[in-house]
Parts: sequence; structure tokens; C-alpha cells
Amino acid sequence: MTINENFLKLKAGYLFPEIARRVNNWTEANPDKTGDLIRCGIGDVTEPLPQAVRDAMKTAVDEQGVAETFHGYGPEQGYGFLRDAIIENQFAGLNISADEVFVSDGSKCDTGNILDIFGPGNKIAITDPVYPVYVDTNVMAGNTGEADENGAYDGLVYLPCTADNQFTPAIPEEKVDLIYLCYPNNPTGTTATKEQLQAWVDYAKENGSIILFDAAYEAFIQDPAIPHSIFEIEGAHDCAIEFRSFSKNGGFTGVRCGYTVIPKSLTVTSSTGEEVSLHALWNRRQSTKFNGASYPVQRGAAAVFSPEGKAQVSALIEHYMGNAALLLKTCQEIGLKTFGGENAPYVWVQCPEGVDSWGMFDKMLEEAQVVITPGSGFGAAGEGYFRISSFNTRENVEEVCRRLTALA
Amino acid sequence: MTINENFLKLKAGYLFPEIARRVNNWTEANPDKTGDLIRCGIGDVTEPLPQAVRDAMKTAVDEQGVAETFHGYGPEQGYGFLRDAIIENQFAGLNISADEVFVSDGSKCDTGNILDIFGPGNKIAITDPVYPVYVDTNVMAGNTGEADENGAYDGLVYLPCTADNQFTPAIPEEKVDLIYLCYPNNPTGTTATKEQLQAWVDYAKENGSIILFDAAYEAFIQDPAIPHSIFEIEGAHDCAIEFRSFSKNGGFTGVRCGYTVIPKSLTVTSSTGEEVSLHALWNRRQSTKFNGASYPVQRGAAAVFSPEGKAQVSALIEHYMGNAALLLKTCQEIGLKTFGGENAPYVWVQCPEGVDSWGMFDKMLEEAQVVITPGSGFGAAGEGYFRISSFNTRENVEEVCRRLTALA
Repeated sequence: MTINENFLKLKAGYLFPEIARRVNNWTEANPDKTGDLIRCGIGDVTEPLPQAVRDAMKTAVDEQGVAETFHGYGPEQGYGFLRDAIIENQFAGLNISADEVFVSDGSKCDTGNILDIFGPGNKIAITDPVYPVYVDTNVMAGNTGEADENGAYDGLVYLPCTADNQFTPAIPEEKVDLIYLCYPNNPTGTTATKEQLQAWVDYAKENGSIILFDAAYEAFIQDPAIPHSIFEIEGAHDCAIEFRSFSKNGGFTGVRCGYTVIPKSLTVTSSTGEEVSLHALWNRRQSTKFNGASYPVQRGAAAVFSPEGKAQVSALIEHYMGNAALLLKTCQEIGLKTFGGENAPYVWVQCPEGVDSWGMFDKMLEEAQVVITPGSGFGAAGEGYFRISSFNTRENVEEVCRRLTALA
Repeated sequence: MTINENFLKLKAGYLFPEIARRVNNWTEANPDKTGDLIRCGIGDVTEPLPQAVRDAMKTAVDEQGVAETFHGYGPEQGYGFLRDAIIENQFAGLNISADEVFVSDGSKCDTGNILDIFGPGNKIAITDPVYPVYVDTNVMAGNTGEADENGAYDGLVYLPCTADNQFTPAIPEEKVDLIYLCYPNNPTGTTATKEQLQAWVDYAKENGSIILFDAAYEAFIQDPAIPHSIFEIEGAHDCAIEFRSFSKNGGFTGVRCGYTVIPKSLTVTSSTGEEVSLHALWNRRQSTKFNGASYPVQRGAAAVFSPEGKAQVSALIEHYMGNAALLLKTCQEIGLKTFGGENAPYVWVQCPEGVDSWGMFDKMLEEAQVVITPGSGFGAAGEGYFRISSFNTRENVEEVCRRLTALA
């Protein structure tokens, strides 16, 4: 009997449990100050689920109460009504068809599960800092060696993104097989231009690599020149998979819905020379190991694209981006160097001279009662930075700004 | 760049897509008879979602509309209110604690994903006939060789269950590492006694094996002597994982909720001699690759255990088991040999002399316009049988009975 011993290589904690641990320790030691705590750590939305989404979900629940409109097992790939709405509203003119969209219960699952269809021995490139799920799922899949004392895994190709390179990862000189890109970026809040993404697509096509493009935050893009989808880039249909989510635009973090786009033109040559469709492999994976997203949830997701839903989502985005603007302004006023926050809900801040990421975390917790996310939790190149999430009420953000100013 | 070439070993189709294909071909050729079609194939519920569940879901959706009661990311393991309700109502007295319950979006996902925590080289035993997901996920994970012309995979240990052995799989003589057991059984509708399960637990403990026990249909058990959970068996806490679902009792096939129970006492020795907790591995898997089940869905699942919910679920079970009784009676009256259907919603029927499973499928489709499931679709030992599902309206079941009688 063997277990998957790759799990034993994983370092002590996914970042957020470690944050939770430190916050718990602090609240236990400071019960009198607990009421003052403001959480800007985890990227979880705070505003209510849009009315249009709630109405659609409740109507769908009512449908489940009548035999004639009851929905049992649905298509594992998602209902046509949602796949069609996604194409019409998110991929119009991008040469993506509804059956290239796979609806799921969330993007975290998809970005993790996608490794099921890839084989052993692939060289994996990730930007650094990075969403920890990309790293940990590759460790679990056996695509890495052991971690060093900084938590960097042997075998992964880390692409540092720091102020020194304007958070633009350099195209690797070696050949890599899978490349994780996330734009707008979590955690740095920075974006990629069309030209920068074109360079990645060109590299991928030249090297037979696949780009795993996480666009969970695309709804926050304000600048019309910034691409929302990798499929705006010429050639991407032959080398890219895109992950999207309703979590951050529609406020679905607790409701759960996301989707993955795999063009049918995407093929990889097997060891016997067969051209294998990644769309077909993922379809088989989902048909066998997934049973479709919840029907009422899919109805709620489709309502995000109704006229009312669009207006309500716009208001949410405007709210969070208003928060980001306040945080940016305050950080800049007190002399901190900031990045991101203009086309993404995350503000990435350089720590003051002589303070490291976890030092800043502890300082903010103890002296300002504000939970931030230490940059080093996202990778070695995140050291010296911290992330402030704009997912909060306006009142809380204003209070965070006052405390930051007082702390300076 | 490599793909997971184990996928290429998979045979042409998961059973249900093949059924859908044949039904589509028939309906295209017989547009005038399409209205007569009655589907007793796939094991999907037909009756409305219980009122208590719908009410709870709608209340939860309303909560999502107010900042103070909004639920964002929940615990990956499920909310305490649901885990507690599960323990209280399903595992009382069985020495299982709430933090040994992992709530998910469905049992199909869990029975597939569980292989993530096991390593390579394990010997897998499955009963035959069997729920195809167990087989296909092991093929994908590389735990098998190629399939032969009958669809049997090299390397799997098949445990035939036929009328000859009263559908009781023989304990293997060789050592196996993982054993899939499903009771009440899908597809045969048969059950296991306490003594039979004790023999499996004794074998597993002696051989260091793990039993993967699928109890998705436990709610249909009528005979009080038949165990509902593997954890009723002495020693099971050291060698078993149990999968449960709200699909078939609460009618959640379209709403999606299930759960997996892993006792903390369950450990496996690693190659370096370390005792590794499977609970800890699954917790890490779920924390990294899953983001919790939908909050309104979990509220709906908890309502299954409310007084109203229990009464409504009882009525559903009674309805389906009433259907099963009618189907059993009719099949017996027309001289067919039947199994199951007394403590499970599936009736397993021996084909008439000289007719094989797919032959019976085609005959029932063409001559009676009834969709059944061919036994051979569940494995070689299912040849010569077919499954009739009792998940249907009473009206449809009565009509199926009339057509069966007319056909005889």
C-alpha cells in the first residue's frame, strides 16, 4: 500500500492557514482589541451577492420543487444556457465556441485538477510571487523535487516579478512545458500588455508549451488597452487554456462557480506520435470525476450577464476599485512604494526599509490591528512586499487608511 | 510536454454516454414513438427536492444578500453546522467526530479524487459489475494496464458478483491494497450483512489494505439488520473510508452535495517508515484543490436532517421503494429472475435465455420504448443481466410494468 509521498514534500502550510494561526494567537492574547481587527488578508469579497443572482437562484430552487421543472444530473460540462451566455458576454469575436467552455464549482478546483490531464516529467514555470495553489498542486502531482529552506521547490522554474523588472517576468531561456500566468495578477495586482502576452504565446508555440492563463480578476481591468483574455492574442488557441471565475466579479466565493476554456484546436503529441486533444482529455476527466455544477448556482451565474446583473456587478467592481484607489493614495502619501491596484483589486506595497514581509504582517496586526498578506507567503520574490486586498467595506478601508497614516 | 497517457487506455465511453447515443439514434429513426419513451436507465432521481431543503436554500440565498449575513469562502471541509448534523443523524454512536467528515459537491468527485492521496503501484480490487467511475479513475491514475477485448483492465483484481455466488464477492486470495465496496450495491441492488463486511475489515487489517466504502444508497435499506455504515463494523476505523451522498435520499443530483468520512485513526506507513494520516492527506488535498461546497447547498443539505426534512425524505424513499416493489413483482410474474430492489432502488434482472445485456437493452428500447441499463456496461460479470432503476414517477413505473407484461 503506497500513499502519494509527494504530499510529504509540501511545506507547513498553505499561506492562509498560517495567517489564520497568527491572527488567532494575537486575538487570544489581546481579547480587548479583537473588535478593532480589520481583515485585508485573504482575497474574499465582502459585499452582498447581486440581487439578480439571488433572484435567479431562488427561482431555480423553486423549479426544483416541481416535477416538470426539476433538474437532476446536468451536463458535466455545464448547462447550455450558461455556456452560451459566457460566450456571448465574455468571448464575443474571440473564436471560442460554447462547447469549449467547461463550467465548474470554482476556478481553484480547475487550476488544481487540470494537472490530471498532463503527464509526468513536465517542466513547470511559475511567476514569483504566485498564487500558492499552482505550486502546491504541482508538488502533489510529483512535478517537483524537495523544497529548500526558503520554500522554493527543486525542479520548478521560478520567474521573479519585482519592482526591478516592473513585475514583468522574463521569458525563460530554457524550454518549459507548462507556464502559469495570472493577469490581472494575484498577488501583485499588475497587468500584462497585449505585446507581453504575445511574446508568451510566441514562446509557447515555438517550444510546444501550454500556457495556463488565470483570468479570475479580468473584470477589474479599467484600461481598455489591457487584454481580458489570452484568446485576444494571436496564436493562443493553439497553446493556451484559460481559467475564469464568478467569485470576484459576481461575489460567488461562497456560492461557487467558475469555468475553464479549452479550444478544440489545442493538441499535444503523445509518445506514440498521436495528436491528442486536450479538450477531449479534459472532457473525459470532467465526465468521470465531476458531476456538473449545482443547477441553482448555474442559474445564478447566468444572471450575472442579465442587464440587471451587469449593472449590479459593475457597481461591485466600482466599489472595490474605489477602495483600491483610497489604499493606493494613502500608501503613497505615507511614502510607501505601491504597485497594482489600478486594474486589479490588490495593492502590492513595498515594505519600509529594514522590515521584511512577515515583520510587516506582525507590525500591522499588532500596531494597527489590520491583517494584510505577507508577500513572501507567495514566493521568495515576494519578500519585502505585502498585499492589501480592497475586498472590504468602504468604512473599513477608510479606517485602514487612517490607521496606516497614524502608523507612519 | 507530456500528457497523461493513461487516459488513452480508457475504452470508448463511460456507459451512460453510450446509452444516450443509442437512445438518440433510436429517437431519430422513430420520431413518432419518441413520446412513449420511459427512461429507467441512469440512476437519477425524478421527484421534487423536499420543501424543507428548498426553504433552507432560499433562506441562505437571502442571507447572501445582506452584508452582515453574507458568506464568502467557507471552510474547505464544510461548515460546522452540516458536519455536526451529519454526525448526529448518521453516525451517532459510531465513534466518528465532526472533523472526520469532509463535505463536498458530490460523491462522484470524492470517489474519483480520493486516488490523489494514494501512490503508484497499489493493487486495486473492485467488484464486478461495478460503478464505472471506480474503474475509470484508476485507469486515469495509472493503476491499470491496457483493457482486453471485453473491457477488463490488466492489473485490476475483479471480484465477480453473480447469481452463482449470491452476489457476494469472494475475499481475494492475493493481497490487494485498495478495495472498493458499494452497499447497498450499484448496480445489483444487493446488500452485505454485518458478517460479510466484518470479513472484509478483517482481511483489510490483516493485509494493510484500505476499504473505500460507498454508502450512497444507505437510506434505502429497509431491513434493520443490514449495516448502513462500514463504521458499524469493528476495526473499520483503522482501515476504511466511507463516501456518502445527498443525491439519492434528498434528491440532490442536480443540487450537488456529498461527503467523505476519514477517521483520524487511519494511517499508512510511508516508504521511510513514517506513519502518515490519510485524514491529514485528504485535508491537505481538499484545502489545496477544493474551495468548499456552495453555502446555500450546505444549508439545504442540513435541512435534510430537520424534522420536516426527515419526514419528506422518508416519503421520497417510500415512493421509490414502492416503485421497486412493483418492478420486482412484475419481473417475477413474467418469469424473470430478479435480485436487489428490496433494500436499494435498483432491480437487477437476469436476461431471458439467449439474450445478452445489450440485446436486452435494444429489445426493451425498440419493442417497449423503455430505457434500461445493460449489465455488461458495469463489467464483464454483468453480462446476462440488466438494471432497472426505480427512480421514476409511479405512473411511469406502472406503465413500464404493463409494457414488460405485454412483452413477455
